[in-house]
Amino acid sequence: MLSVSSVVQYSTVENQRRILRYRDGEIEITDDHLALEQPLEIRVRNRSLVVTMRTPGHDQELAAGFLLGEGLIKARDDIASIEPCAFDRNGNTINITPAAHVAIDFEKLTRHVFASSSCGLCGKATIESIHRLFPPVKSQVNINAATLLELPEKLRSSQATFDQTGGLHAAGIFDASGNLLVSREDVGRHNAVDKVIGYCFLNGIALDDKILLVSGRASFEILQKSLAARIPIVAAISAPSSLAVDFANESDQTLVGFLRGGRMNIYSHPHRVNAKSS
Amino acid sequence: MLSVSSVVQYSTVENQRRILRYRDGEIEITDDHLALEQPLEIRVRNRSLVVTMRTPGHDQELAAGFLLGEGLIKARDDIASIEPCAFDRNGNTINITPAAHVAIDFEKLTRHVFASSSCGLCGKATIESIHRLFPPVKSQVNINAATLLELPEKLRSSQATFDQTGGLHAAGIFDASGNLLVSREDVGRHNAVDKVIGYCFLNGIALDDKILLVSGRASFEILQKSLAARIPIVAAISAPSSLAVDFANESDQTLVGFLRGGRMNIYSHPHRVNAKSS
Repeated sequence: MLSVSSVVQYSTVENQRRILRYRDGEIEITDDHLALEQPLEIRVRNRSLVVTMRTPGHDQELAAGFLLGEGLIKARDDIASIEPCAFDRNGNTINITPAAHVAIDFEKLTRHVFASSSCGLCGKATIESIHRLFPPVKSQVNINAATLLELPEKLRSSQATFDQTGGLHAAGIFDASGNLLVSREDVGRHNAVDKVIGYCFLNGIALDDKILLVSGRASFEILQKSLAARIPIVAAISAPSSLAVDFANESDQTLVGFLRGGRMNIYSHPHRVNAKSS
Repeated sequence: MLSVSSVVQYSTVENQRRILRYRDGEIEITDDHLALEQPLEIRVRNRSLVVTMRTPGHDQELAAGFLLGEGLIKARDDIASIEPCAFDRNGNTINITPAAHVAIDFEKLTRHVFASSSCGLCGKATIESIHRLFPPVKSQVNINAATLLELPEKLRSSQATFDQTGGLHAAGIFDASGNLLVSREDVGRHNAVDKVIGYCFLNGIALDDKILLVSGRASFEILQKSLAARIPIVAAISAPSSLAVDFANESDQTLVGFLRGGRMNIYSHPHRVNAKSS
């Protein structure tokens, strides 16, 4: 079994991370490319409007599109300039200066607003601000790789609606023996996670030795919710984002992605996954 | 070609809608099941905290999980009760009464907050509140079904990062001849849409005769953003939600889903899709 220290954490600006790739009982160390996720704070006349988790790039378009979608601007002439804020060396803060004739009603605009502690910060600072609220997990639980590989089919079998609509995200909580304790479906990935965590919380089921499995991708938000619930192992059928991986590393959480077809990638703290079933 | 009126809109509480199914040049009318999407307003001590678009059901778990994720509650004893608000006959408002010893800092909690105009309302009222800001589209554009069917491959070919990470959503804007004008990728589906719309907005490209294609599912939020940008045709590779379909119907937008493998479902205003290429 490879030790924790063999997984090196890369820069938070680059999208390459060192991971463990598991396939048919064999593990190899490799470098993997991840979808970059970083916070962007959008300001209007230097007042903070929203922080959204986005993939860096085309930020001026993102800011313009967001304002248009909220009905704050209507025509190209409504914008005087859109510029990155010089003080933010991470490039994660952008300021829109509307034309003089444009009145912005900040009161109407509460949608998507993010915790103020995260505003204008890089991914690393975002993680630190979450850690002030929720410390890293401490859990000695581990799970056999063979058991992990069976979880997607168990979750899938529990999804009643999916076969009808193809339109729902699913989340499930499993114990280390691979028993499904609860699963929920929702149009929102984060809602499905809130529901399974809420179920366990309301029913007095401790989560510090459980596994969360999500049907799609693992983003920063999924990791934050699982940390708040003290879940030590998070697995996703699809890809994690860069910030999810960094978050899991810092939170002492084991993050597994692409869990399907007899394979998986382990992105952080692989000591909780036993490659050889015993 | 079937007329608009042949598509009947069903109840907003049920998840069945009448649609047109296109396959190999043939169209049939059929009933389709959709993932239900409705707003849920979460209140704490009767004060509004957040409105989230969710699939109805297990709302108490959702509310508890949300509060846990925000760090507002830590233990089961922190909650005295979680009850649906009697005044809301749609069941879309839920109130949490924390135990007396729990202090809730509302100032810290600005995340995920939704436009106040939508709070505590059903899907129909949510649509109406959006329509006060953005009236339905008026567009005579139409597109050949054969042209539509080619769009997913064109979008896919433009995705640079996807092959590396499998972790990004994509959005593209096409003209009615099927030419790709811009595509963007992002960890957030809504961000990818904001970026392509923002690109067109900043470059003076009118969108009232264009098509938006998204790589995943179509939710209420995607339809709202496309309406704000005056886009008459929205297509998704995967499933739409019930509220997305209702929104498109009311907004005079053509909504296409499951656009892949030579097939598509048309959920609203099918007159803009020409089944037989000419």
